[in-house]
Order: sequence, then structure tokens, then C-alpha cells
Amino acid sequence: MPRIEARLTELGVTLPTPPAPVASYVPFTIVGALVHVSGQVSMDGAGGAKGRVGAGLSLEDGQAAARICGLNLIAQVKAACGGDLDRVRRVVKLNGFVNVTPDFDAIPAVVNGCSNLMVDVFGDIGRHARSAVGVANLPLGFAVEVDGVFEIA
Amino acid sequence: MPRIEARLTELGVTLPTPPAPVASYVPFTIVGALVHVSGQVSMDGAGGAKGRVGAGLSLEDGQAAARICGLNLIAQVKAACGGDLDRVRRVVKLNGFVNVTPDFDAIPAVVNGCSNLMVDVFGDIGRHARSAVGVANLPLGFAVEVDGVFEIA
Amino acid sequence: MPRIEARLTELGVTLPTPPAPVASYVPFTIVGALVHVSGQVSMDGAGGAKGRVGAGLSLEDGQAAARICGLNLIAQVKAACGGDLDRVRRVVKLNGFVNVTPDFDAIPAVVNGCSNLMVDVFGDIGRHARSAVGVANLPLGFAVEVDGVFEIA
Repeated sequence: MPRIEARLTELGVTLPTPPAPVASYVPFTIVGALVHVSGQVSMDGAGGAKGRVGAGLSLEDGQAAARICGLNLIAQVKAACGGDLDRVRRVVKLNGFVNVTPDFDAIPAVVNGCSNLMVDVFGDIGRHARSAVGVANLPLGFAVEVDGVFEIA
Repeated sequence: MPRIEARLTELGVTLPTPPAPVASYVPFTIVGALVHVSGQVSMDGAGGAKGRVGAGLSLEDGQAAARICGLNLIAQVKAACGGDLDRVRRVVKLNGFVNVTPDFDAIPAVVNGCSNLMVDVFGDIGRHARSAVGVANLPLGFAVEVDGVFEIA
Repeated sequence: MPRIEARLTELGVTLPTPPAPVASYVPFTIVGALVHVSGQVSMDGAGGAKGRVGAGLSLEDGQAAARICGLNLIAQVKAACGGDLDRVRRVVKLNGFVNVTPDFDAIPAVVNGCSNLMVDVFGDIGRHARSAVGVANLPLGFAVEVDGVFEIA
């Protein structure tokens, strides 16, 4: 079994079907060795996490939402790799946007829900540069959105 | 006539003069085959679209504002290509920021005003990865800002 | 003395120790000639600048905060270059996020605190593409966050 797929199994992680964009763009583009993945919101088969962290959603809810974004990112990268996640060379950069109330500032802790997943799944090559900011709202009211740049072989 | 210029004519699109930055930076940088274009706000010769989508501005106003950002992006890319838009190989990634009230969440529909223009003008190579978020405010109160990465020959 | 270090001395600039990430990610990644630097907040040895521009913080406070982000970015790039800032070929792109009240829109002027530093330190190769937006909140309530892409030799 491929290495990263084995790791996903070990972690008990089932990747979602890569979500279709909710608008007129594509899930990812590839230029040279770099994959640019569109912003993935905290949407899953059960609906996912909507709302604002600091109001209806707790820190833990936000972290779980960020993890959903991470699963969607990995699912998109898998598609970009033609199904072979062992082609991933590096998680280069993640940009995390958290739907917050103006008084909620534990934004890094929220986005860790996504960052930790990357390290759990990919190990050292999952360690990435990152930005994390709190925004006024996100598409369709989802709680978290994360986009990313990945290097692949 | 060059292909993309012919398409602009067909669409009835007149590109603006590439707007000058409103601060101490440059409109674009080129590294290898990639052009990084600075955030383009919804500013045009008539002033452009200022305000907040969900308050003074409707969804349609927001879409029109995003289209202005798209025109400005294409004008900058044209300058980066020395005037020859046929050198564009791919619209790689767009980041759309919408000035919203906290309760407005039709953010993807707003940014489509820019994304649809890219596909209208460039066809298949205009299909891009994208992020779209709602923010608390934008430079000088403009309604939309979009930056982008383009691959050129 | 290396050229850029001499320029820092001339400007009276002392670089901070590159700040450690406040979460599970790394300060920068290198892919080919590009360094992606994580979002640097307005944190310094004395604590740094927290709060919201337009409420507790003035425009000038915001500019000083953005300059701190710039110092942290340069410190990270220096680490990415193994200590030799003369390896920097271009400041490619900066993304500036300003913690604002919804009515504050002099966002470009704030981020200039960082942009001007880049030009002061690096000269022409410090001139960069840029986005600047106003956000609802930032990590731990800091006033400004800036991330960046740099080309190095």
C-alpha cells in the first residue's frame, strides 16, 4: 500500500470526495511542480461546520472545522496527483481564514486543526509556512476556509 | 489581430489603463514564468465601486465591482506581457476579498464577477484556483479587491 | 561587510531574533528559488502592537506595527538565506492584513509601514507586488500581520 495511504488508514482518516467548487473556478491548478489548491471550506458530507467562532462556535468547534478543510485540501491534492499522495514533496504554504467575532483572537489554535492534520498525515514534509487571519464572513457562512500550495513530484 | 485582443473586442471589453498602486509598491512582479499581480480594487475611470456588500451594495453591485477588479488584473497582466496578452498561459490563482457586512455570505457569487470574466476572455486557460473571503474593510473603502498569479510565456 | 547588512546598519535597524511560530507550523519553506514566509505579526521583544486600527490604535500606530512585521519578515528571510541577506534577489509579494474597525479604510497607508522598510533596506529589488486588506481580528489580537514570497539566489 502506498505510504501516505497507509498512514491515512493508520490514523483512521477517510478522505472525502474532493468537493466541487461552489462557483466558476477549478479546485486546483498545476504549474511546474506546484499545485495551487482553491480555498476549501469546512464542508463535509454531513453539511459541515457553519457559523462564527466566538459566537455560536467554540474553539474546539473551530479546530474541528479547520480539520475538515485539511481533509478537503488533501483530497484535492490527491486528485491533482492522479490519486498517488506519495507524489507530495512538501506542503509549502497554507492560508487559513477563520470566521470570527471581532473579540475572538485564538486564531492560530483554530487553524492548527488543519496544520496538525498535515503533519500527522505527511510527517516532516507536512510542516508548512502559514498565515492565519480572522475574517468578517466566509462563503455560505462556513466557519473556516484554507487554501494551499503544495509541491509534487 | 492577436487572439485575446480579438476576444476582448468581441466581448465589447475595453481594458482600463493599468491603475497605479495607491501606495509604495509595484503593480506586479515577474519571477520566472509567474506574474504576481498586486491586489486590484474595484476602481475605474468613473471612480468605481465603494461600500459594503450587504449594506449599501447589492449582490449584483458586488459582482460588477469584482468584474472591475478583473479588468484591472487583465490590464496589469497585459503590461507585464509587454502588451501581448497571447503570452498568458494560465490564470493560476485568484484571491478575492469582499467588503461585507458580517451577515452577507454569498461571497462566491460576488467573486464570480471576476472569475467569469477570466473564463470569458481567456477560455479554458482562464479557469483558475481561487479563494474568496469576506473582510471587514478594504483600501479606501472599495467594495472588492482581487490579486492573482498568472503563468506567462 | 555584506551589502544589505551594511544598509541595515546605515538605517540603524537591528533585526529581531526570528520569532518562533505561535502554532504547529514553520517560519518559512523553500521551494526552488522561492521562500514562502509565514505570516509575521506585529510582535517584538517588548510585546509589540496589539489592538485595532481605528479604535485604540491610530494610523501612525498601525504603520509602526506594520514596520515590526517587516522586520520579522526580513529576520526570517535572513534565516532562510543561512544568514546572508545579499542572497535576496527580489521581494516578490507581500500580503498585508490589518486589524481594523469596519470604518477604517486607510489600509494601504498602514501596510506602507512594511513596504517602505523593504524598499529602504533592499532598494529596487525591495519593490514588491502587494495586497492589503482589513480583517476582523488577527492572532492573539495583534494589529498587523504580513506574509511574503521572496526570491533568493
